[in-house]
Amino acid sequence: MHIKKLVVTQDRRVIALNDLNRTLHLQNGAVAREKLCEGKNGVVESSTGEKLLVCDPLFKDGVLKLKRNAALIIPKDLGFIIADTGLNKNSIVIEAGSGSGGATIPFAGICKRVYSYDIRSDHAKLVRKNVELMELDNVTVETKDILEVDEFPEKADLLLLDLPNVAGTVKVAKKAVKVGGYIACYMPQISQVQDLVDSLEEDFKYEVTIELIQRRWDVNDGKLRPQHSMLGHTAFLTLLRYFGRW
Amino acid sequence: MHIKKLVVTQDRRVIALNDLNRTLHLQNGAVAREKLCEGKNGVVESSTGEKLLVCDPLFKDGVLKLKRNAALIIPKDLGFIIADTGLNKNSIVIEAGSGSGGATIPFAGICKRVYSYDIRSDHAKLVRKNVELMELDNVTVETKDILEVDEFPEKADLLLLDLPNVAGTVKVAKKAVKVGGYIACYMPQISQVQDLVDSLEEDFKYEVTIELIQRRWDVNDGKLRPQHSMLGHTAFLTLLRYFGRW
Amino acid sequence: MHIKKLVVTQDRRVIALNDLNRTLHLQNGAVAREKLCEGKNGVVESSTGEKLLVCDPLFKDGVLKLKRNAALIIPKDLGFIIADTGLNKNSIVIEAGSGSGGATIPFAGICKRVYSYDIRSDHAKLVRKNVELMELDNVTVETKDILEVDEFPEKADLLLLDLPNVAGTVKVAKKAVKVGGYIACYMPQISQVQDLVDSLEEDFKYEVTIELIQRRWDVNDGKLRPQHSMLGHTAFLTLLRYFGRW
Amino acid sequence: MHIKKLVVTQDRRVIALNDLNRTLHLQNGAVAREKLCEGKNGVVESSTGEKLLVCDPLFKDGVLKLKRNAALIIPKDLGFIIADTGLNKNSIVIEAGSGSGGATIPFAGICKRVYSYDIRSDHAKLVRKNVELMELDNVTVETKDILEVDEFPEKADLLLLDLPNVAGTVKVAKKAVKVGGYIACYMPQISQVQDLVDSLEEDFKYEVTIELIQRRWDVNDGKLRPQHSMLGHTAFLTLLRYFGRW
Repeated sequence: MHIKKLVVTQDRRVIALNDLNRTLHLQNGAVAREKLCEGKNGVVESSTGEKLLVCDPLFKDGVLKLKRNAALIIPKDLGFIIADTGLNKNSIVIEAGSGSGGATIPFAGICKRVYSYDIRSDHAKLVRKNVELMELDNVTVETKDILEVDEFPEKADLLLLDLPNVAGTVKVAKKAVKVGGYIACYMPQISQVQDLVDSLEEDFKYEVTIELIQRRWDVNDGKLRPQHSMLGHTAFLTLLRYFGRW
Repeated sequence: MHIKKLVVTQDRRVIALNDLNRTLHLQNGAVAREKLCEGKNGVVESSTGEKLLVCDPLFKDGVLKLKRNAALIIPKDLGFIIADTGLNKNSIVIEAGSGSGGATIPFAGICKRVYSYDIRSDHAKLVRKNVELMELDNVTVETKDILEVDEFPEKADLLLLDLPNVAGTVKVAKKAVKVGGYIACYMPQISQVQDLVDSLEEDFKYEVTIELIQRRWDVNDGKLRPQHSMLGHTAFLTLLRYFGRW
Repeated sequence: MHIKKLVVTQDRRVIALNDLNRTLHLQNGAVAREKLCEGKNGVVESSTGEKLLVCDPLFKDGVLKLKRNAALIIPKDLGFIIADTGLNKNSIVIEAGSGSGGATIPFAGICKRVYSYDIRSDHAKLVRKNVELMELDNVTVETKDILEVDEFPEKADLLLLDLPNVAGTVKVAKKAVKVGGYIACYMPQISQVQDLVDSLEEDFKYEVTIELIQRRWDVNDGKLRPQHSMLGHTAFLTLLRYFGRW
Repeated sequence: MHIKKLVVTQDRRVIALNDLNRTLHLQNGAVAREKLCEGKNGVVESSTGEKLLVCDPLFKDGVLKLKRNAALIIPKDLGFIIADTGLNKNSIVIEAGSGSGGATIPFAGICKRVYSYDIRSDHAKLVRKNVELMELDNVTVETKDILEVDEFPEKADLLLLDLPNVAGTVKVAKKAVKVGGYIACYMPQISQVQDLVDSLEEDFKYEVTIELIQRRWDVNDGKLRPQHSMLGHTAFLTLLRYFGRW
C-alpha cells in the first residue's frame, strides 16, 4: 500500500507517510529517515526531543490519502449498500461509473472481484492508479459505457449504478447481474428516483428507497449537542433485485 | 447455508427455502419436492399452473432468516462502521457483546476472523447457532465478560463495543486492539457517549460521534414523499482509535 | 370557549371540562358540580379525599379538544408559517381548504380576520362549529372553490393553500393577496412542489421550500435519547410572495 | 415602522427603504425621492428607464431589517413555541433573556403584552431600539436578572427562557406564570435539558422535549433535492406547564 507508516504526535495528530526514504519534517522537529523503516514500529525521537509513535497504517489510512477528482460516495451511503445487500468476500461487484474509486476501493477490500466501468478515461485512469496504490489485485477498470458491454466476465451479486442516467442504464442488469442479485442506485435528485421507478420493467423487484441524514455531535468542553454545520444531503439510495421474467 | 433456494412468485414475492425435501405449499398451489433440488435453478410449475422461479440465495437471504433474540444493529449503523473503518478481508474483529449476531455474521462474511464475547450464554449459544447456519468457519464465540479475557488470540483492527457500559469497558482495547486500530462504540443514550468521552484516557484518539437518521421514501402510485412511519433513533456511534501512550 | 375549566390531579393529569353542570367522575372519586363553577379556581376535594386543582384553561386547551375530521397541520408546520411570514394581530389571512380548522383557529387567535374556503360543506360546517366553540368572532367560512370567488372582502397578508392542486390554485393569489403578501403552500408530495414551481408565473417571487423533521426526546429515568417512534413526514412547505407584474 | 416602502426590481429583488427623503441608487439607475412618498404605491421609473414596483412593507420586512447582536431564535423554533402553546392576541408573555429581540418583536406582534428581561444593558437597549423601530407599544424591556424581580406586573400565559442557566431559573415561573401557563425553554445543549428535567419540582408538568431539523430543498433548473448546506442544530425545546402544588 502507498501509505507505509503512520507517525503519531503527542497530541495524537496522525501523519501518513508514503515515503520512508525522506526525512520527516514536523512542527516540532525532524525525524531522520534512518528512524523510519519498513519493518519497524515503536517510539522514535524527533530532533527537538519529542517522542513520536510509529505504527502500521490500516487499509482506511490508505483510502483517506487517495487522490479524488469527483464527488465521493461517503461512508454512510457506501456502508448502507454494503450492509443492506450483505456484501462479503465471495461477492462479485460491477459498478458504473468508477468516479475516483470511492466505492471501487472499499468494495475491492471486501469482495472477491470488482469490475468498474466509466465512460471517462480520466476517471478510469485515476481509479487504476488508486487500485495500484492500494495494491489491490482484484479490480478491473474499463473506459467504457457499461451499456456497450457485450458480455460481462462474471455476473454480479451487486451492481452499483452511480451515474447521471440510472433509469436509462438499469436494463444492463439483465446482462450484468445474477438472478437474485442486487442493484444499488445512487441518485442525488429525487426526480431521478421517480424516473427510475417509473421505468422499471417486471424483471426487477423494487426493494426500497432511503436517504440517510448524518449528524455529527460535539461531545466535549461542556458541549453536548449536534454540530451546527452539517451536510444536508448526498443522495437517495434505491435498492432493486433482479429476477428477470419467466 | 441454511437457506437452500429462493422461490419467486409472479408478483415477485420471495420465499426462502431451508428444506428442499418438503413439498412447498403456496397460496397458488404446491410445488413437489422433486422440482426443488440442490443444484437446479430455473422455472418450475406449481400444482395450479403458476410458473415460479427457483434461484440461489445470497448471503443476505441467509442473514434475513436467522433467529434474533435482541435488538439488532441495523444496516445503516453497521454499514457506517464497516465503511468508515475500512473493514476488509484482512481485518480481525473483536466484539462485545454478541447479541444475536447481528454484527458478527456480516463481519464474518467480510473479515478474516471474528472473536465475539458475550456474558450471556443464551446469546453466545444463539450466535454459534447462527454462525453454523450461515456455514461460516471464521468465528469464535465465547461466553465471557470481555474484561476478563487475559489474552486475545489476535489483536483487532476493529473492536466493536455494543453493551451497556461502554465507558467502563473501553479500556479492554489496550489488550484487544492493534496499535492504530479502531474502536466502534454503539450507544443508545447520548449520556453514554458523554460518559465514554469523559472517561477516555490518552491511549485513545477520539475520532467522531454521529447519528444516522434513516428516511424511507414512497415512490409509487403518484406518491413521492418520505414515509410517515419512521424509526426515530437507534444509537449514537462513536469511533475511537487506539494508539496507547509513549 | 367550550372548555370551561381544567381539573388537575395530584399526578398532574389534566382534565378539560366543557360542562360545569355535571358531576365529574374520576378514577379516584367524584367531584360534585357545586364545587366546579364558572368564576372559581383553586383546590377542591373529590369524594375519596383527593385534592384536585381547578384552574382556567388556555386557548390551547380549547384547541386540543376540538373535533377533527381530517389530517391536521401540526404545530411545527403551522408555527413555521406564522413565524416566517411575520403573522400578527393586524394580519388578514385567507385559506383554502379549511379542513377541520387546524390552521383557521390558531390564525384567528392571532390575526385580525380569517377567511376560510373549502369545497366540502362538511368541512366548512365543522370549522364553523369549531370557531363557535372557541368563541372567535373574526372568521368567515365559505363552502366554495376558492377559484370561484369573484372578489375577496379584503386582500390577504397571507394566503394558505392546503389543498390537493396547489399548482392549479396559486393563481388565485392575484385576487386574494396584497401586493407584497405571502402565499404559504402545504404539500405532502415533493412532486407537488415541483409542479407548483414549474407553474409559477412572474407575478410570484419564489422564496423557499423547506421540510421540518421533528424529533421528540426521552429525558427521564436514565434515558437521554431521541424516541424510537417518530413521525417521518407531514408536508413540504413552500413560501412565495406575490408582487404581480408591471 | 422603520421600513417605509419596498421597491421591487424586474428580477424580483426586494429593496427595503427606511428613508423616503433620499434618492434611491440602484444598479440600473436612480429613483428620485419625489417618486417615493409615504402614501403612494405603484410603478415608478428609474433614471435608466427600468420600471420598478413600489409597495407597502409587511411586518416581516421590518423584522428582517432590525439590527442583531446575538444568535437569534429562528422561525422554526419560535413558530413551534407560538403554535404549540396556542399564543394569541390575549396572551401575556414574559421572556428572559431579551437577546436582540428575536422573540420579543414577533411575540409583540401577536400578543397583548410582552415583558422582556435581560441582565445585559446592551441587550435591553437594542431590544428597546428595535421595539421603537417596529412602532410597537406593548413591550416592556428591563435590564434585570429575572430572578430578582419581586413582583411581575402581570402573570404570563407563556414564559420563554432563553438563557444559559434554565435549570436554575425555571423556579421564577412560580411568580411569573399563571396557573396553567406554559414555560418554553430554549437550550442548545441536551445536557441542559437533562439538568432542567432533573431539577423540576412538582410545581411543573413536563410536557415534551423536541428538536426540529430544517431542510431546505432546491426545486429548480432540473434539481429536486435537499440542499447540501444545512444548519445542523439550533436548540432543544422543552415545554412545561406550571400548576404549582396543592
